[in-house]
Amino acid sequence: MTTSTILRAYPGRAELDPGPLGDAIDHLIACSEACTACADACLSEATVSELRACIRTNQDCADVCATTARVLSRQTETDARLARDLVQACVTACRACGDECAKHASHHEHCRICAEACFACERVCRNLLAALP
Amino acid sequence: MTTSTILRAYPGRAELDPGPLGDAIDHLIACSEACTACADACLSEATVSELRACIRTNQDCADVCATTARVLSRQTETDARLARDLVQACVTACRACGDECAKHASHHEHCRICAEACFACERVCRNLLAALP
Amino acid sequence: MTTSTILRAYPGRAELDPGPLGDAIDHLIACSEACTACADACLSEATVSELRACIRTNQDCADVCATTARVLSRQTETDARLARDLVQACVTACRACGDECAKHASHHEHCRICAEACFACERVCRNLLAALP
Amino acid sequence: MTTSTILRAYPGRAELDPGPLGDAIDHLIACSEACTACADACLSEATVSELRACIRTNQDCADVCATTARVLSRQTETDARLARDLVQACVTACRACGDECAKHASHHEHCRICAEACFACERVCRNLLAALP
Repeated sequence: MTTSTILRAYPGRAELDPGPLGDAIDHLIACSEACTACADACLSEATVSELRACIRTNQDCADVCATTARVLSRQTETDARLARDLVQACVTACRACGDECAKHASHHEHCRICAEACFACERVCRNLLAALP
Repeated sequence: MTTSTILRAYPGRAELDPGPLGDAIDHLIACSEACTACADACLSEATVSELRACIRTNQDCADVCATTARVLSRQTETDARLARDLVQACVTACRACGDECAKHASHHEHCRICAEACFACERVCRNLLAALP
Repeated sequence: MTTSTILRAYPGRAELDPGPLGDAIDHLIACSEACTACADACLSEATVSELRACIRTNQDCADVCATTARVLSRQTETDARLARDLVQACVTACRACGDECAKHASHHEHCRICAEACFACERVCRNLLAALP
Repeated sequence: MTTSTILRAYPGRAELDPGPLGDAIDHLIACSEACTACADACLSEATVSELRACIRTNQDCADVCATTARVLSRQTETDARLARDLVQACVTACRACGDECAKHASHHEHCRICAEACFACERVCRNLLAALP
């Protein structure tokens, strides 16, 4: 199953093309998952006291991306302003989290993977912002 | 227990006064709860097919307010830009949901209660936006 | 606004008395909020490396209680088995988190407050388990 | 990126094999996403008043699977009892939601896709229950 497939089965009139929308949702979900796992991995590092900013920004990014994925998955009576506000919040969260994780990428593989997921998600969110009505 | 009390026990330097911050979080949580209950009550109304917009906006508002409450409850290494983006999304969601629920307030007590929770939450979010650095 | 008030406005046939149900939901929400704030406060403590178990159990308890509050707030076509499974998970999470926080209660006021919220929530969840059909 | 890859980068001692664990988390996330989209698609069907049970069970299943995915993504100081309670709740939710969606699968493609996601998730959750310590 891919997200786009179920979005295409929506019976009403869709505001957004299910292809790019599903791709954005998949990136948001993957980013949220990477951030949750990275926050937890940081918490177990010997140097946890130097990873506080990383844990915090991971937690926020996980929450914001997961919620935005849910809201974007709904196609009934969409409020484009709210979608825009949320996707903007994701851009902010993903950029901050990606930048923070990138600082630790050479020491911690989980931070390297997470930074990549954040930057990929930031890119699709910027594209989605341009596509939103 | 009040939210402000536990926020005051934070050991680091807080960016925001725990009094108004705790009050904002409490309004976000109450609004999220009202929206979840209102979406469900709408779903059981005989006129559910006329309440689609109300259910949708309730679901979004519940998700956005709950996530924003979580992010604002964290005081470690706060990213003021993300806080601002999220609180702005709450203003958008609460206004849209309050307006939609208000249309049905004379017929459905749950919509009347929910509209009130949304407008109260919108107010504290606007105040918080002004207070954010 | 109280949670019970909006639950009482539900138009269908309710499975559970909105009084105790609303009280349980309010405890779940308060516990979730306390756990989110306590995890963050622990993260800022100088002794964060000794608070890993506390942070982890706080995060889980916050997630489980928030989700259970949402599910219990819905009164349409309730699945009593799922409600029971979730409330049982809350009992487990609240007991584990309360016990862990209680170990640090004399050093950290946020842990003391959080342990109290967890134990209070555990109590109402046990009562709810007994009341579920 | 796959979930297993970032789970493997965890620096501590893992309780569970990251391969099957990551697979379970991926199924939980996919199921949660399918349920959110299916609830919304049901809400837009002309026959929405006959899909109340489907919408309700979709919403619950989405919430429970998303939360369980988060909890399972944390490998620090894992509480096997809580993991077990939550995975059991997922089995209950996925079975109920899959059965409900299957009733509408011949009329609504989104219900067919969602039923499949629920049953696949139920299977991996049952396997995970057997693997949990």
